[in-house]
Amino acid sequence: MSEEKKKIVRTPISSYRDGRFTEIEDFVVREAPVTVHLNGKEFVTLVCSPVELKELAVGFLYSEGVLRQRESLKSIVINEEEGLIWVETAGEPAPRETLLKRFVTSTSTSGRFRASFYSAKNTEGIPRIDSGLQVATREIFHLADQLEKLSGVFKITGGTHSAALCRHDSVVYFYEDIGRHNAVDKMFGRCFLDGVTFDDKFLVFSGRISSEILIKVAKMGMPMIVSRSAPTELAISMAEHLNITVVGFVRDGRLSVYAHRERIVD
Amino acid sequence: MSEEKKKIVRTPISSYRDGRFTEIEDFVVREAPVTVHLNGKEFVTLVCSPVELKELAVGFLYSEGVLRQRESLKSIVINEEEGLIWVETAGEPAPRETLLKRFVTSTSTSGRFRASFYSAKNTEGIPRIDSGLQVATREIFHLADQLEKLSGVFKITGGTHSAALCRHDSVVYFYEDIGRHNAVDKMFGRCFLDGVTFDDKFLVFSGRISSEILIKVAKMGMPMIVSRSAPTELAISMAEHLNITVVGFVRDGRLSVYAHRERIVD
Repeated sequence: MSEEKKKIVRTPISSYRDGRFTEIEDFVVREAPVTVHLNGKEFVTLVCSPVELKELAVGFLYSEGVLRQRESLKSIVINEEEGLIWVETAGEPAPRETLLKRFVTSTSTSGRFRASFYSAKNTEGIPRIDSGLQVATREIFHLADQLEKLSGVFKITGGTHSAALCRHDSVVYFYEDIGRHNAVDKMFGRCFLDGVTFDDKFLVFSGRISSEILIKVAKMGMPMIVSRSAPTELAISMAEHLNITVVGFVRDGRLSVYAHRERIVD
Repeated sequence: MSEEKKKIVRTPISSYRDGRFTEIEDFVVREAPVTVHLNGKEFVTLVCSPVELKELAVGFLYSEGVLRQRESLKSIVINEEEGLIWVETAGEPAPRETLLKRFVTSTSTSGRFRASFYSAKNTEGIPRIDSGLQVATREIFHLADQLEKLSGVFKITGGTHSAALCRHDSVVYFYEDIGRHNAVDKMFGRCFLDGVTFDDKFLVFSGRISSEILIKVAKMGMPMIVSRSAPTELAISMAEHLNITVVGFVRDGRLSVYAHRERIVD
């Protein structure tokens, strides 16, 4: 069975249209918890589209900063049926701390905390992106169309988000998941496994660009994120600071650039 | 300033349309972290639309099972500007444990874990909903329209999710937030503060119906959830089990009922 088919299940529903109910079968998206064990210990449970688990586990650990180099990954064992993953790393893994947690700890020793420091503090330690990437508007429109065309599970169920790693006008990797963070993590996981570098590539994404998504992109050293949807003010200010291009609302031949337009050529 | 205006900020953007860029000002949604302190200790940081913080803190603690009765809430102090909240409860608060965490702990003592147990286990302790609620299809269509009309921040920024508590054909409470969980938590927080009961009311929601959202609804004892978007298979199976009606894809005079259609009358 293809990975796409495994994300979907047929279910009986009552469909109401033209003023009456009909009992039919329809497709809905699967959702299941998956537990990652790190060096023998239970580490995290993620609720996801329960396939591409290798990519998910590796991408999650990579995004969280637990896995940093390809050589650190000793082995990964997947039991897809039971939603279980065992990852072994060489040496001690970096302690798990989300960026948010790290930020909070570093600024609120007195229990006081200024939201306005979030942006600067939370991007601390992430280097400014240095990339000469240039992308044409027509490439962006083309890739936004590609993202839509490739989103097969969404078209059938309406229940997923999509993430595509792109270079010039091509999609290098594409992932769909019920969780927008999972879709991005699966993509990063694949890149980690394949040793892909990011400075000449960018993310085309179906979801809104929140600070958390922007931070993921920044940590990978990626110079640009494109979405059919909206960014938040905080994501924009972080992107401004980190030299990341933010493109939103790519629809019907229009788009908006919220930060670092110099990478977009006409 | 209205709560709605506080969720939005004006920002310079480069807008591309009709084949050329123009520098304009546009509106984007605000996003900021807010830290909740419980009985003097830092408890959680939520990234949210940084207003309606009383509702958010109370709703979050209520959803998580930390706050259970109105009498337990001794005081709540908000510093909106700095994104800080201090909640004092009477007696010891219930320990914080997400349902997911609780489930994982209760089933994986040996490090083994069966995803297929998730549904049954994770809804353990949540009583089946006992409610004679009946809602007409025309009321559902009306409320879906109302949700859209009320979503003022979304209309301006495209960056929020909306949650409405409804009774018959009326919206009782309405909240918008950048996070779909926050929107629901704010609504529950308001209900907790006002002593609202749920057995004759239902949630009309802009987002997808995942297991996490379904569990929130179930814990409040609410008999129905309606969305313009898709449910997941796991949410449907939980709803089936807990006697909750799930209505999705309410659009253009059509809708789909995924569980417990007996509450929908024509």
